[in-house]
Amino acid sequence: MKWVRRWFIAGLLVAGAWAAASSLVQAADALSSWNEGTAKASIVRFVERTTAARSPDFVPPAERVAVFDNDGTLWAEQPMYFQLMFALDRVKVLAPQHPEWKTQEPFASILKGEMGAALAGGERALAELSMATHAGMTSDGFERIAREWIATARHPVTGRLYTEMVYQPMLELLAYLRANGFKTFIVSGGGIEFMRPWSERVYGIPPEQVIGSSIKTKFELRDGKPVLVRLPEINFIDDGPGKPVGIQMHVGRRPIAAFGNSDGDLPMLQWTAARPGPSFCLYVHHTDADREWAYDRTSSIGRLDKGLDEAKARGWTVVDMKTDWKRVFGFDPR
Amino acid sequence: MKWVRRWFIAGLLVAGAWAAASSLVQAADALSSWNEGTAKASIVRFVERTTAARSPDFVPPAERVAVFDNDGTLWAEQPMYFQLMFALDRVKVLAPQHPEWKTQEPFASILKGEMGAALAGGERALAELSMATHAGMTSDGFERIAREWIATARHPVTGRLYTEMVYQPMLELLAYLRANGFKTFIVSGGGIEFMRPWSERVYGIPPEQVIGSSIKTKFELRDGKPVLVRLPEINFIDDGPGKPVGIQMHVGRRPIAAFGNSDGDLPMLQWTAARPGPSFCLYVHHTDADREWAYDRTSSIGRLDKGLDEAKARGWTVVDMKTDWKRVFGFDPR
Repeated sequence: MKWVRRWFIAGLLVAGAWAAASSLVQAADALSSWNEGTAKASIVRFVERTTAARSPDFVPPAERVAVFDNDGTLWAEQPMYFQLMFALDRVKVLAPQHPEWKTQEPFASILKGEMGAALAGGERALAELSMATHAGMTSDGFERIAREWIATARHPVTGRLYTEMVYQPMLELLAYLRANGFKTFIVSGGGIEFMRPWSERVYGIPPEQVIGSSIKTKFELRDGKPVLVRLPEINFIDDGPGKPVGIQMHVGRRPIAAFGNSDGDLPMLQWTAARPGPSFCLYVHHTDADREWAYDRTSSIGRLDKGLDEAKARGWTVVDMKTDWKRVFGFDPR
Repeated sequence: MKWVRRWFIAGLLVAGAWAAASSLVQAADALSSWNEGTAKASIVRFVERTTAARSPDFVPPAERVAVFDNDGTLWAEQPMYFQLMFALDRVKVLAPQHPEWKTQEPFASILKGEMGAALAGGERALAELSMATHAGMTSDGFERIAREWIATARHPVTGRLYTEMVYQPMLELLAYLRANGFKTFIVSGGGIEFMRPWSERVYGIPPEQVIGSSIKTKFELRDGKPVLVRLPEINFIDDGPGKPVGIQMHVGRRPIAAFGNSDGDLPMLQWTAARPGPSFCLYVHHTDADREWAYDRTSSIGRLDKGLDEAKARGWTVVDMKTDWKRVFGFDPR
């Protein structure tokens, strides 16, 4: 009966090879906006060696935590952070209720459309702008405001909805990871409540998997009705060294994969790389001035300097947007 | 062919009735430690009307968020909060490294076993105790300490592991809700990092669904190795009005079901009850001095006073542990 066993084993081998081949095909299909190259290959290799049941690097599904920066990693961040555009639009909407803004900076300059002057006040001006536009209402009220803005506001350069300014290859990557049992989280310096109203629809990431910066809130009963009031006080800055802190606070596990585009993401990538067992770190490098923007070491928005050096030194994956991505946005020609 | 259609419809009706009956049977099996009564019936009714596809109160799975207090709701909290027992045990372990504790309160009294004197210092004494035992190490280090303690420490009255002091009917309720598409969260005044090392094993609740009180942490590179250091500074108190704040911060959606046992849970229940659409609020009332403990309006631990009044006024479900639960703990006789 030896031949029976031999045939049986041969059958298993063929079935195994077929399964492996079809998994590769699936990956190729799933990542169809990625050109063949080292970036795509490194992603697929990592997913396969951490999910194949017999792989020595197998990671149980519960531990397959993947964290993504948002601005510049999942959607664009030029010519300025989209949440800043939101704040500027809010100033215009709220101006009639604030006659004092006509003479008070940074509001006076914003209302005159003089952005340079408005931002000359630096961090203090930004903080005043944030609090005037993000605090004072209830959490439900802010959610409505953010939801309405994102549904209608348009990017100043492309004229597209901001939710169209998301990177098609990264949407495919999110879906590919989830199809392989990964749980995907956003870990952004942006406001947590600014992202949540649309993160599920746009990225497939539910609100409970969104981590971001926040202001303090307070529980109150107003005429017997419970509300959460947004206070003009910083609660948490989810940027730079804050990102691992935010991950530990919200997830409570070390990620096995981290995706960013700037030095502000470096601690998150370091934290991920230092876990025992396999890990994957990837930087999106903005190299495509035609289809998107090109910037790195000297940019005031999304500076990638130390991160680029560390990525090279440690062999992390660096995506060259110009050569690695077939399409940048969903509206780019196929 | 009318009779064919009639038979067909009759068949559908029978099938429907059979499905409904078997769903009730499944609920009855799933909640086998619950006696038949209004508490169990109200739970089953709520789950059925929010999950049946054609119910006017149907809630999509993504919105089926259920939040549970821990101390006194999922596990016992007498004769004192278990995390306080952990802190006292840590003082004994750490005492050799702290000769100054021999004369310094609350440590001196703890080391002499005089708990009354130790706690006479009130909140300040508790804060000193917490920081001395919960801060100073890395997040990984604290996880190891909590994990080892919970695996070996025993309850002073029953001699059981603390993880055996969980309520069997509540374990069944957690599983029943999850089987019906609910996502279960812990929302506890206890320490978030104290619960996470065992919440998945004991409750089936993964670390990213645990919300609790926390101290601040700081990201550092120590000899190039990234660590999160636990600082002796309060970050967030997840109790009373803090519970809705913590829920919004971590979940970003309003729960549709909330389970607690004390006035510290009241804002969480109010927040849940005030959502538009169906909601369910339940209080566990400690009424069983034989199998567990009996306490409510005047207890210093787990006081249930205003909450009991509000539950009655608003028709929330109140579990009478003595009559509603067949068994309290898994080790109770069936």
